[in-house]
Amino acid sequence: MLPATVLAKKREGHALSESEIRFFIEGFCSEQIADYQMSALAMAICIRGMTSAEVAALTKAMVDSGDRLPRCSDRPRVDKHSTGGIGDKVSLILAPLLATCGVDVPMISGRGLGLTGGTLDKLESIEGFQTQLTVDESSKVLRKVGAFIVGADSSVAPADKRLYSLRDVTGTVESVALITASILSKKLAARLDALVMDVKVGSGAFMRTMDEANELATSIRRVSEEAGLFTSVIFSDMDQPLGAAIGNAIEVNEAVDVLQGMGPPEVRELTLELCSELLVAAQVAKNREEAITLLDRNLDSGAAMERFERMIVAQGGLPKFPRPIDPESLVSSTSDGWVSKIDCPRIGETIVTLGGGRRLTGDTINSRVGVRIHVRIGERVKRGQPLLSLHCDKNLATAMFESLNNIVEISDCPVSQQAVILTGS
Amino acid sequence: MLPATVLAKKREGHALSESEIRFFIEGFCSEQIADYQMSALAMAICIRGMTSAEVAALTKAMVDSGDRLPRCSDRPRVDKHSTGGIGDKVSLILAPLLATCGVDVPMISGRGLGLTGGTLDKLESIEGFQTQLTVDESSKVLRKVGAFIVGADSSVAPADKRLYSLRDVTGTVESVALITASILSKKLAARLDALVMDVKVGSGAFMRTMDEANELATSIRRVSEEAGLFTSVIFSDMDQPLGAAIGNAIEVNEAVDVLQGMGPPEVRELTLELCSELLVAAQVAKNREEAITLLDRNLDSGAAMERFERMIVAQGGLPKFPRPIDPESLVSSTSDGWVSKIDCPRIGETIVTLGGGRRLTGDTINSRVGVRIHVRIGERVKRGQPLLSLHCDKNLATAMFESLNNIVEISDCPVSQQAVILTGS
Repeated sequence: MLPATVLAKKREGHALSESEIRFFIEGFCSEQIADYQMSALAMAICIRGMTSAEVAALTKAMVDSGDRLPRCSDRPRVDKHSTGGIGDKVSLILAPLLATCGVDVPMISGRGLGLTGGTLDKLESIEGFQTQLTVDESSKVLRKVGAFIVGADSSVAPADKRLYSLRDVTGTVESVALITASILSKKLAARLDALVMDVKVGSGAFMRTMDEANELATSIRRVSEEAGLFTSVIFSDMDQPLGAAIGNAIEVNEAVDVLQGMGPPEVRELTLELCSELLVAAQVAKNREEAITLLDRNLDSGAAMERFERMIVAQGGLPKFPRPIDPESLVSSTSDGWVSKIDCPRIGETIVTLGGGRRLTGDTINSRVGVRIHVRIGERVKRGQPLLSLHCDKNLATAMFESLNNIVEISDCPVSQQAVILTGS
Repeated sequence: MLPATVLAKKREGHALSESEIRFFIEGFCSEQIADYQMSALAMAICIRGMTSAEVAALTKAMVDSGDRLPRCSDRPRVDKHSTGGIGDKVSLILAPLLATCGVDVPMISGRGLGLTGGTLDKLESIEGFQTQLTVDESSKVLRKVGAFIVGADSSVAPADKRLYSLRDVTGTVESVALITASILSKKLAARLDALVMDVKVGSGAFMRTMDEANELATSIRRVSEEAGLFTSVIFSDMDQPLGAAIGNAIEVNEAVDVLQGMGPPEVRELTLELCSELLVAAQVAKNREEAITLLDRNLDSGAAMERFERMIVAQGGLPKFPRPIDPESLVSSTSDGWVSKIDCPRIGETIVTLGGGRRLTGDTINSRVGVRIHVRIGERVKRGQPLLSLHCDKNLATAMFESLNNIVEISDCPVSQQAVILTGS
C-alpha cells in the first residue's frame, strides 16, 4: 500500500477501507508516513468528507494508537464534551456535581487557543492546581474523589494529539469527520459508559447554524453508537456568552457561585440538563425529573462545592475562593433600548488582548483579567446602565474603551429573550 | 497573513489572491511555510481547482523563486513540451532540427518515473553525454549550437522542483492547475518567445480522453497568454506508442533514423507538425507550408543530423550510432486478423521490469533494454508474423514471454487506422 495511492483515492472522493485508514494512522504514529502526507489526507477529508464507517475506523485506529484508561471503581463512568464557547465554565461545576451522585467523571480537557478559553487554563488560576497528571495519579484521584479534570496524557490517543496540532496549522480543523474522531477517540480511550455532548450553536460557537450543529451531532451519535458508547446531545445557545463572566479566575469564581447555589441561572440550567442526561443514561436516575431533583439537592446542600474542593486538593491545589481578579472598569449604555446582539467573537478577542488568552500555543496567560457582561439579549436597558466591565489594569482599560463600543448592541425596538437550551433534531 | 487562513480559504473553494499565493510560495522556499502546509494546499487545489488568474499568479511566483535564463543570442527562442507518452522521442529530433532553422531551443527536460521514459535517460545512453550543466555551460552550448537538452538546474524555478517532489508522494500530481503552473514556470524562466504543447491523449497518456486533454490545453493557453508567452497546442494520439521503439538506446537509434530521413513516418509527421507551429510563431516561416518545406529540406539534407551530433559533442558526448542494444527476441501473432489494441501501460511496465525504467527515483537504468512494436492499430496481420520484440538478456526474455500475451490484441474484424495528430478544440 502506498500513501500516495490512498491519498489519491480520498482526493477523488472515494471511501477508504478500514485497513487503508489504519495503515495511515499507524504509519503516521511510527513516522513511516510523513506529516506532509497526513496533512494532505486531512485536507482531502475536510473537502470530501467521510462515511460513518470511515469515521468509526479512524476513531478506532486513533484509540488503538495509545493506552486506555484502566477501570478503577465499580461506579458508572460518564463525561461531557462541549464544542466550545465563550464563558463556558460548565465542566468545573458538572464534574464534582456528578461525582456526588455516585458516578465517576474522568475528564480530559484542553487549553484555550484563539477565541475560546480552556478549562485547564481556568483551573490553573487556582493556586497549586496540577493539570498534568500521569494515568496512575489521575486514576488515584478518580478512585478517591470520583472526578478529575486533567490535560491529555501523551499515552492516550497520541495519534489524535499529533493530528490535532497538524490540523491547527494546516487549515483543516473544520471537518465534521475529523472533529468526531478527535472527540470520540479520547472518550473511548477513557472507557466511558455514557457521554453527553454540549453542541454550541450561534455567533460565538464553532457551529454557526443549527444545520451545522445537527450535522456534527448526527456524526457523533452514529459513530459512538457504532463503537458501543451511549451518547446524547444537547444543543445550547452561543449567540451570547454562557453566564456573565469570561476569563480565567473570573470564570472559576462564577462556577463557585453556581456550586454554592447562586450565580447566573442559565449556567445552572444548562449544567443540570447535561448532568441529568448522564444520570439517566448511567441508570442512577430513572428519569429526568428524578435526576434534576438529586442534582438540585446536591448543589443546594453544598455537597457539590465540597466535592469540588476535594478534587482541587487531590490535584494539588488550594481551594481558596474567590480567586483574585484585576479591578473593574465599567462600560455603560449610551442609550435606552433593548439588548439585541452581543458580539461573542469580539469578547474573545478582548480577552486575548487583555492577556487572558493565547494567540499562539505556548503563550502565557494572565488569569486575573476578564470581561463581565451585565446584560442578556432581550433585556431592557436604560442610558447609563452598566453593559459590561473589563477586569484589568486601569490604564489598559482606558486605552481599550473605544474598541468596546458595540460589543453589546442596543435596539430601539423590543427584542425577545433567548433560551440557553435549544431544540435540536 | 497566516498559512492556516489561506489554506481554509482554498479548502472552502474560494479563489486566492495574488499576494496570498506569493506569500505561500515565498514562504515555502524560505522554509517559513512547512512541507505539511504546502501539501495541504496542493490537495485543496487538486480538489477545488484554481481560476486562470490564480494559476497565473502561482506560475509567476514559481518563476520568481529562481533565476531566469539569460538571453545569449538574437535568435528567437522556442521550445516544445509533451505531457508524456510511450515511445516519445520527438525532443531528440525537434531540438537540433529547429536549431538548423535559425531558432534557439533551450530544452529543460526530465527523467523517467513509472511508466513513461525520460528524455535525459535516453540521451545518457550516448557515451559521455552530460545532462547536468550549469546555466553558464548551457548558455554556451545554446550560443554555439542553437539547442541544448539538459536537466533542470536548481536555480531555475526551485519552488516547482520542491513542490513537484512533494506532490509525487502526496497523491497531488493530478491537477490541471498544478500541472499548468509546473510546466509554464520552467518555460517562462527560460524566456521563450514561443512554446508548443504536445498534449497526448489515449490509454498510454496521462490524459485518457479528449475532454481532459482540452481542459489542460485551455488552462495552458489561458495562463501562458496572461504571462505573455505565445503557446499553441497539438493533440496527438497515445492509444499506441509513438514509433516502434520503446526504451532508451533503442529510442535514440530510432530518433537518429528519423534525423537521417528514415524511421517511422508518424514520428516524422508529429515532429514536423510541432516544429512548424514554432517556426510560424517565431516568424521564421510565413505559414505552415513554408515551415514544412524548410523542415523537410533540413532533415533530408542531413543538416539536422549534423546539428544533433554537434549538440552531443557540445554536451560532452560521443556521437556514435547506432547505440548498442541487447539482442532481440520476437513475439509472433498466433492468429490472422487486424491489430485492434496496443496496451501502452503494459509496455511501460515491461520496460520497468526489464530494468529500462524506474520504480523509485534514484533507481539506475539499463539503457540497452527495450521493446519494439512491429505493428500499428488497424494493420492486417498473419499468424506467425512478428508483433513485438524484446531487447534484453535471452533468459529474461524467455521468462517474460508468457506475460507479453495480449499486449497487442488481434481482432477478427477489420479495425480502422488511427492518425497520430488528433483534431482538438
